[in-house]
Amino acid sequence: MTRSEPLARLIEQLQRLPGIGAKSAQRLAFHVLKTPREDVDRLCDAMREVKDRVTYCSVCNNITDQDPCYFCTHPGRDRRLICVVEQPENVVAVERTRDFRGVYHVLMGALSPLHGVGPDDLKIKGLLARVAKGADEVILATNPNVEGEATAIYLAKLLKPLGVKVTRIAMGVPVGGDLEYADEVTMHKAMEGRREV
Amino acid sequence: MTRSEPLARLIEQLQRLPGIGAKSAQRLAFHVLKTPREDVDRLCDAMREVKDRVTYCSVCNNITDQDPCYFCTHPGRDRRLICVVEQPENVVAVERTRDFRGVYHVLMGALSPLHGVGPDDLKIKGLLARVAKGADEVILATNPNVEGEATAIYLAKLLKPLGVKVTRIAMGVPVGGDLEYADEVTMHKAMEGRREV
Repeated sequence: MTRSEPLARLIEQLQRLPGIGAKSAQRLAFHVLKTPREDVDRLCDAMREVKDRVTYCSVCNNITDQDPCYFCTHPGRDRRLICVVEQPENVVAVERTRDFRGVYHVLMGALSPLHGVGPDDLKIKGLLARVAKGADEVILATNPNVEGEATAIYLAKLLKPLGVKVTRIAMGVPVGGDLEYADEVTMHKAMEGRREV
Repeated sequence: MTRSEPLARLIEQLQRLPGIGAKSAQRLAFHVLKTPREDVDRLCDAMREVKDRVTYCSVCNNITDQDPCYFCTHPGRDRRLICVVEQPENVVAVERTRDFRGVYHVLMGALSPLHGVGPDDLKIKGLLARVAKGADEVILATNPNVEGEATAIYLAKLLKPLGVKVTRIAMGVPVGGDLEYADEVTMHKAMEGRREV
């Protein structure tokens, strides 16, 4: 052991974080070493506060520090328009568009038989109950990959008999991108989803 | 404010870390949210322990949890062979070669008039004192950039009158690389430093 023991332990802990490899972990650890103690305390307090105060909304399963959450209690939000996403972080992505005025329903995952995730592992019952109470449209905004697509198809089958309009977000070439870099599946979806101008 | 307050605060704190942008900070914050409380505590404890226990070696300025450090006290290390580096993390890089058996001297930076770093801001006096007490060779392993090179030249001028052998690490094309990707300065150094085979 040639390096300082506490530093080695910190590097080991940092490497467990997603997207942090050996090099990044070392850089971060040396940064912590040079950072004033107060800054380190602030980061730790922020992490612990997230663990202590953030919970999940009992209505939509989004993360929140009050229950029901901001979206479910907001008077300006249309409770009859429900956007279904896989994870709480997906809510952030939809909100970034700044023009969705409905509410959310977070599934907490996507169907993935390979990883042992079945319908009972997702928050589907709550969604069906909400729709049964009354909804105009359910937007399926699960990820545009195999799991998200399978989940969307599964949900559509369950939701349509309830008499609600079920839609799926559009898939196609990303704005600002270049056709040259579009893969064939995306390009296929873009062609298939073409609209008259 | 549509997101949870504690989560927003954590994202803000995470973004201060080097190499962590808005996207990574969000991903890390959501990871913290899903991580068991014990893991978060372990990470915080590791960070605080680094702040509390890790100090700098009074001989070589390397980071250590005992003073003098591992290298300066190791009986198998040649104290007459001193490798000069800019930062404690550079010691790790040299150690990785597994064949340097000398000791280190960490400058805590490099000369950089543009950033207001002059000779008095670096740990140069301690190095001169160590060499004056007796040394066979000083290897200048400062970074292969403008600041590191200037620092190496400056140190060489101070050290040579003390009658010690002063060497500089080789610069050239990196092993495993491809000549096609070598920039012209590196290629120039590689040609200049060529050796007979």
